Amino acid sequence: MTEKEEIYNRDKALFEAGIKLGALYHQFIGTPVSTKTAKELEIAIEKSVSLQPWVSAVKVKIDREKVRKCENGNKFEYCELSGEMLDVEVVVRYEEVEVHARVKYDEEMGYPLMRIEKVT
Amino acid sequence: MTEKEEIYNRDKALFEAGIKLGALYHQFIGTPVSTKTAKELEIAIEKSVSLQPWVSAVKVKIDREKVRKCENGNKFEYCELSGEMLDVEVVVRYEEVEVHARVKYDEEMGYPLMRIEKVT
Amino acid sequence: MTEKEEIYNRDKALFEAGIKLGALYHQFIGTPVSTKTAKELEIAIEKSVSLQPWVSAVKVKIDREKVRKCENGNKFEYCELSGEMLDVEVVVRYEEVEVHARVKYDEEMGYPLMRIEKVT
Amino acid sequence: MTEKEEIYNRDKALFEAGIKLGALYHQFIGTPVSTKTAKELEIAIEKSVSLQPWVSAVKVKIDREKVRKCENGNKFEYCELSGEMLDVEVVVRYEEVEVHARVKYDEEMGYPLMRIEKVT
Repeated sequence: MTEKEEIYNRDKALFEAGIKLGALYHQFIGTPVSTKTAKELEIAIEKSVSLQPWVSAVKVKIDREKVRKCENGNKFEYCELSGEMLDVEVVVRYEEVEVHARVKYDEEMGYPLMRIEKVT
Repeated sequence: MTEKEEIYNRDKALFEAGIKLGALYHQFIGTPVSTKTAKELEIAIEKSVSLQPWVSAVKVKIDREKVRKCENGNKFEYCELSGEMLDVEVVVRYEEVEVHARVKYDEEMGYPLMRIEKVT
Repeated sequence: MTEKEEIYNRDKALFEAGIKLGALYHQFIGTPVSTKTAKELEIAIEKSVSLQPWVSAVKVKIDREKVRKCENGNKFEYCELSGEMLDVEVVVRYEEVEVHARVKYDEEMGYPLMRIEKVT
Repeated sequence: MTEKEEIYNRDKALFEAGIKLGALYHQFIGTPVSTKTAKELEIAIEKSVSLQPWVSAVKVKIDREKVRKCENGNKFEYCELSGEMLDVEVVVRYEEVEVHARVKYDEEMGYPLMRIEKVT
């Protein structure tokens, strides 16, 4: 194996951070949610992400204002969790490398952008 | 419309009960879970099902023994929620009709059987 | 058991029809889709629903116009499958009873309404 | 920002590769599948992953032998797609960096391990 093909701890930490964001997004999008149940859903997502390898912290926020708007727009007064409502920060530590990553809706792009916020 | 094609409240109650079981199963299967987080996941599933139209009660049980067995069988000590672990009872009321329905793994069939338990 | 508590084939057919719609909705919502891949996704959903017990027919339509609009609104030119785009008709036969059911977005309700279309 | 905190193209390529594997896994796990429909599901997963940013290739294999075994073990002769059945290779290119990543069940670990196979 040439040096070029070596895989570093930094590589693994970033790869693992990506896995966590992709996984939680596609697991929980579509879940019925309302302003009354958003708290419990946040906790359940945090707990489930925390179980996965190399996760050292996770913070989930569901945008109450967007949930409320969506509730008011449909007859049954609840919503499906969507990318627009979700803001999740995950910290992954793999050996000596720590990655802070986040998924948060980017209004301009119209896209729930997953991004690396910090690598140390 | 002939009488044969009429749709009754009983029909709707049963249809709605089926929707709830099918929906929750395919929403939550695959969620990372362990004996430490099963309680929060049960609560989140109950809350999310409760939001949906005509649901009057819901009780979710995740089989701790099966979760424990699965944890012990994998290196990272957590599992994905699977049909074998899940026991959910939903009560749907549509007008005067009440349906008790349930999804619970049937060991003999090797299948997470969804069944009607009572219609009143 | 009093007659009132008996469960009929008609009950089971309606319950099963509900299961199919709830299941497919929460399984596939969130799947990346574009006008270029909608056909293959329709086929995969149809195939997967057809496997389930008592399903005799299924027709999936993903609204190309809505997919196109969504593609144009985001930087990466693809979308997540959402309730607004989906129109699925399922026929369930349980013994002598046939149920035609459908999920289709109801613009006025702002809701992907699941409905019984016919019972024979 | 110190040099240490800089984010490189290599970092982004690895992060994006992780996202793709995490996403597809949690989107499609639980989908009804049989030996008769596995081909169409493979195609639909490939198409959906291909749409996502920076993906240059994707190859999905569903293990027919495991599907067959599972079909035979349940009354209705179909299965849910599970981690044991799935082998997916994704190639992500971000600028000049190419990452080959894969999810494949590791029998010894009892775990659907996501791994980096090559970075060039």
